[in-house]
Amino acid sequence: MSLPERKLIERIRRLAGAKSNAVLACGIGDDCAVLRPPRGHELLLTTDFSLEGVHFRREWHSADAVGHRCLARGLSDIAAMGGVPLAAFLSLALPAGLSQDWVDGFMRGFTRLAKKFNTPLAGGDTAQSPGGVLADVVVLGSAPRRTAVGRSGARVGDDIYVTGSLGSGIVVLRKLQERRRSRPALKHPAAERKHFYPTPRLEAGRWLRERKLVSAMIDISDGLSTELSHICEESQVGAWIFQPAIPVAPGATLRDALHGGDEYELLFTAPPGKHDHIPDRIAGVAVHWLGTITKARGMWLVAPSMKSRQELKPEGWQHLEARSPQRV
Amino acid sequence: MSLPERKLIERIRRLAGAKSNAVLACGIGDDCAVLRPPRGHELLLTTDFSLEGVHFRREWHSADAVGHRCLARGLSDIAAMGGVPLAAFLSLALPAGLSQDWVDGFMRGFTRLAKKFNTPLAGGDTAQSPGGVLADVVVLGSAPRRTAVGRSGARVGDDIYVTGSLGSGIVVLRKLQERRRSRPALKHPAAERKHFYPTPRLEAGRWLRERKLVSAMIDISDGLSTELSHICEESQVGAWIFQPAIPVAPGATLRDALHGGDEYELLFTAPPGKHDHIPDRIAGVAVHWLGTITKARGMWLVAPSMKSRQELKPEGWQHLEARSPQRV
Repeated sequence: MSLPERKLIERIRRLAGAKSNAVLACGIGDDCAVLRPPRGHELLLTTDFSLEGVHFRREWHSADAVGHRCLARGLSDIAAMGGVPLAAFLSLALPAGLSQDWVDGFMRGFTRLAKKFNTPLAGGDTAQSPGGVLADVVVLGSAPRRTAVGRSGARVGDDIYVTGSLGSGIVVLRKLQERRRSRPALKHPAAERKHFYPTPRLEAGRWLRERKLVSAMIDISDGLSTELSHICEESQVGAWIFQPAIPVAPGATLRDALHGGDEYELLFTAPPGKHDHIPDRIAGVAVHWLGTITKARGMWLVAPSMKSRQELKPEGWQHLEARSPQRV
Repeated sequence: MSLPERKLIERIRRLAGAKSNAVLACGIGDDCAVLRPPRGHELLLTTDFSLEGVHFRREWHSADAVGHRCLARGLSDIAAMGGVPLAAFLSLALPAGLSQDWVDGFMRGFTRLAKKFNTPLAGGDTAQSPGGVLADVVVLGSAPRRTAVGRSGARVGDDIYVTGSLGSGIVVLRKLQERRRSRPALKHPAAERKHFYPTPRLEAGRWLRERKLVSAMIDISDGLSTELSHICEESQVGAWIFQPAIPVAPGATLRDALHGGDEYELLFTAPPGKHDHIPDRIAGVAVHWLGTITKARGMWLVAPSMKSRQELKPEGWQHLEARSPQRV
């Protein structure tokens, strides 16, 4: 370990301010972190890259927002299983000459979100980056044994729901790309806030899991059409989505909502008998019914008239490219 | 997720061939992996970057060796706690245009080592790299509650030991740097093998932990002087090392053995009463007594004559730079 690396670790340790707790027996400062998950729980583990130029740009995203976003990705995966986060791990490679201010800002954004969701920074790695800023975040969570919600449990006749609204991620990216320099004031402050400081839907995911309401769940990091196709594939079913039911974010188009990624909403299915138990809002977030799971494979978008439908293809989402999604 | 990314994940899933087992309830293919660690165990978690140009070079290291080495780093951290590995997670970012052969070779090296130590690949992330090949490996392990061996348990009067021999890592790097092109046949096949295909000392670490012989343990990724300074700092003690006791690898100098990194040996301390219980070899690996833990802080190297000593400073180890270590 080089001396600057050592200093960086000391600084991260101080800024993270994570102390031992019931779960974290030993954090930063040994070969491994030592953790004691709650008794009777299964572990949930997710890792997410956040790479400069791929997942963020330093000229668009403040250091604080980058730190927030890279942890939010992992927390959102825990939310999608209905889990509770226990600890986070940060592998961070920095280019030579990056300012101390940037690192401090990054850690500020990261630790603010970590504290909000009671997720201490328990370890990680540091290195000098051969290119831009490279972060890989691990979030460890847990859920009582056999209760975590996967992607493969959707059954024919289940209803399909989504939290929040869709399409704001791509709207903000498009604006950022149009005005290439610096961070412009955009037109939709709510969309902007959601892009720069997304809130992982941990409370909603946990609420749904605790009440045993959902059969399958996923977060929408890669766009509604792609994530729904994952549920359909893993559950070996099809889906009908009703176009008027889609909660299109202000400033976004239907296509943005169907195919745009960089969202942190939850897409889930529930047996029809649970419909009356699913409220319009969970933990302050709106919940929208979208459609229904079918036996016939394939995904279909049903027109507002209810008289026609067209096939809905999963559109792969490329981070930061904000391509115009394929016509539907 | 882009379609190539999806294809890559499918390929990794197939090449990894990890199936569910008693620990791994659900691996690649959901938002999180779901794991059930052994009852009464604490979790151990470590993350390690392996970045092209920093930790390896494609012109020096075959894809197979890169895959092996990046998992070996994490397994070695589990070994240093006396733990047993449960599962590995691979975040892998690849530059556009990297050949499928390279990826297959990488996965071959990774999974061969994973199988050897019964560590299924349980998840991870993929991305397109803005620079070279970027890997971040997480290894999750466990040990019975309150038995994991940390860095802070060394006590005054404890003996200091090391497994294997030291210095071969830097010898091989120096040769690679001298002959810049391709992968030359080197002079020390054992050293070469140890550099390209290091064996994490999992059996030795576990053996020592199970018999409650050790008070502190660490692996020597950053060189003996640096790792010993970590034990001394965390345990608030000092150390005397006896120069003739240092197991210098064939072709290496004393300085290489003291300060060279890229090793995967274990450095540990044990109470003097345990001396007779520590064998010359553990799980086929030689064990050497090196010196003793002192109350006075600082590290000292005692000359062969036993009549003089000089201060031993921790030398930060820079991966791939193979600097000439400072004179001792």
